[in-house]
Amino acid sequence: MTPPAPEGIGDDAALFHPRHGPLLLTTDCLIESRHFRRGEPPYLLGRKALAVNLSDVAAMGGRPAAFLLTLGIPDDLPARFLDDLVEGMASSAREHGVDLIGGDTSSSPGPLVISITLLGTARAGRGTRALTRTGAAPGDAICVSGPLGGSAAGRRLLESGWRARLDGRRRALVGAARPAGAPALLPVRALEALRSHLDPRPRLRLGRLLLEKRIASSAIDLSDGLSIDLSRLARASDVGARLLAPAIPIADCARAVGGALHVSPLDLALHGGEDYELLFTVPAAKQRLLARTGALTIGRITGATGGLRMAEPSGRERPLAIAGFDHFR
Amino acid sequence: MTPPAPEGIGDDAALFHPRHGPLLLTTDCLIESRHFRRGEPPYLLGRKALAVNLSDVAAMGGRPAAFLLTLGIPDDLPARFLDDLVEGMASSAREHGVDLIGGDTSSSPGPLVISITLLGTARAGRGTRALTRTGAAPGDAICVSGPLGGSAAGRRLLESGWRARLDGRRRALVGAARPAGAPALLPVRALEALRSHLDPRPRLRLGRLLLEKRIASSAIDLSDGLSIDLSRLARASDVGARLLAPAIPIADCARAVGGALHVSPLDLALHGGEDYELLFTVPAAKQRLLARTGALTIGRITGATGGLRMAEPSGRERPLAIAGFDHFR
Repeated sequence: MTPPAPEGIGDDAALFHPRHGPLLLTTDCLIESRHFRRGEPPYLLGRKALAVNLSDVAAMGGRPAAFLLTLGIPDDLPARFLDDLVEGMASSAREHGVDLIGGDTSSSPGPLVISITLLGTARAGRGTRALTRTGAAPGDAICVSGPLGGSAAGRRLLESGWRARLDGRRRALVGAARPAGAPALLPVRALEALRSHLDPRPRLRLGRLLLEKRIASSAIDLSDGLSIDLSRLARASDVGARLLAPAIPIADCARAVGGALHVSPLDLALHGGEDYELLFTVPAAKQRLLARTGALTIGRITGATGGLRMAEPSGRERPLAIAGFDHFR
Repeated sequence: MTPPAPEGIGDDAALFHPRHGPLLLTTDCLIESRHFRRGEPPYLLGRKALAVNLSDVAAMGGRPAAFLLTLGIPDDLPARFLDDLVEGMASSAREHGVDLIGGDTSSSPGPLVISITLLGTARAGRGTRALTRTGAAPGDAICVSGPLGGSAAGRRLLESGWRARLDGRRRALVGAARPAGAPALLPVRALEALRSHLDPRPRLRLGRLLLEKRIASSAIDLSDGLSIDLSRLARASDVGARLLAPAIPIADCARAVGGALHVSPLDLALHGGEDYELLFTVPAAKQRLLARTGALTIGRITGATGGLRMAEPSGRERPLAIAGFDHFR
């Protein structure tokens, strides 16, 4: 007989003892052919499956603590693929100090299914316990934590035939391979785009800083694209927003890929999705703290009747088109 | 603009405030063609998807509180199917007082995927905080909360062509329809088998009673079959077990279906799975409390070296075959 399993894993349910404060819970599911393709490196896919959940906890200013993993495994999936996927997920779990406390595994008649539920803790005590989407007010600055469009550029590269080159252990991205006939591109830009898409880094430290120093009045993570995620934040807060087109930070690789593939880099940044940067709002009284965050101001919150608008360099304004990476496309 | 979404749903993560005590977390995933077929009534499928998770909380003596729902929806799924599924799930959620606090929805290129993460609360304070699989000791009685094999009998009927007949609103099972050529059976037994399989009832009240009155030393829910689930409990507790074959309660419908389909009713009860009854162990000092539970004693826990054995009416003993409903079959 083997020794008893540790409490929390291997029983009918996991027992979880939150240290303090309310809990954050989020769940995100990656389905083959919708959210990824099997040609993507499984080690990085394992990391990303956890990262997209970690990003939700980051957007609420929380600390991730533990997760449950559900896998639906196709019969034809090579054992090595699954090993690498689990290794990658474990590497991300170690980095962020989260424990696997349960899950469910079965076979799938079709796609590989990776569903994760992540638990985090929110801040207990007086005042704001978590960052939400509901606190933005007219006059607040709209900020973003980093350049956008890189992930969408990477996805376009993969769709055009480019492939990730990995190290010998198949764990680290070391380059990008261009197939014959695919559009030419500086290798360093291709690698940057693939890294943005295949190995996004959740902004956990920034999320906690925004909450603890009470810098942000609201926040959301950029999973589906700046335009659609901003519209969600605006709806939840019952406000409008005005973006400044030239202020929107476009990733260098998005400019390069956009040029090579004849796609507007600004569209990649606005609608591409999966950048997993944080979008947040900052009241006037807190804007002196913005420098500490490294974030960039890209617009202002307005009244709800203003809707969502984009100001061009010329000073002209137009309604902001709302389109995101559509999982239903 | 619509009003802000309530806290907990619609944000990046759900905020959950446990009333007291540690949390129980469990996740179970149903995948089309593996765990169900699309011909099954969607309303009942929605109920069952939640019930299999509720059963895990029951097996730990907990109170269910809230759940997150992940759906992977095939493009060809009729809208009515999804509506009925969600209605059924909501009916079960109302019955058990659990709230939907978050989730993730995307399209699926193949099967319908229904993944649920359920939260419950365990008992706080002195002593045992939850029922686990690890407390069984030699001499404890092995008990089961109800007759077994009914769900497997229902699955066999569906596989042989029998169909559920529903009421006009497609929500309640009112009968069983026998296709031409399918084996004959008393309609009341066919209905009983289909109900066991399509609409299992989690044993939440019993689970709490076992924990609160400290009746059980260990418990597990019967999801994969008596033999395999007993072997899990025995391994977790580092004990052996001796079952008495004539004491194992076989559902009337399992006897009837077994007779009609030429399957051993005892095999349906031992290995069929998905009955969602509780299997638990009771120390000698607590056996006077067993009558309150309505459970039946089916054997005794032995030392680990004894392994798992089955005693026949003749007094002969043989090793217990371990086989369960295999999701990988």
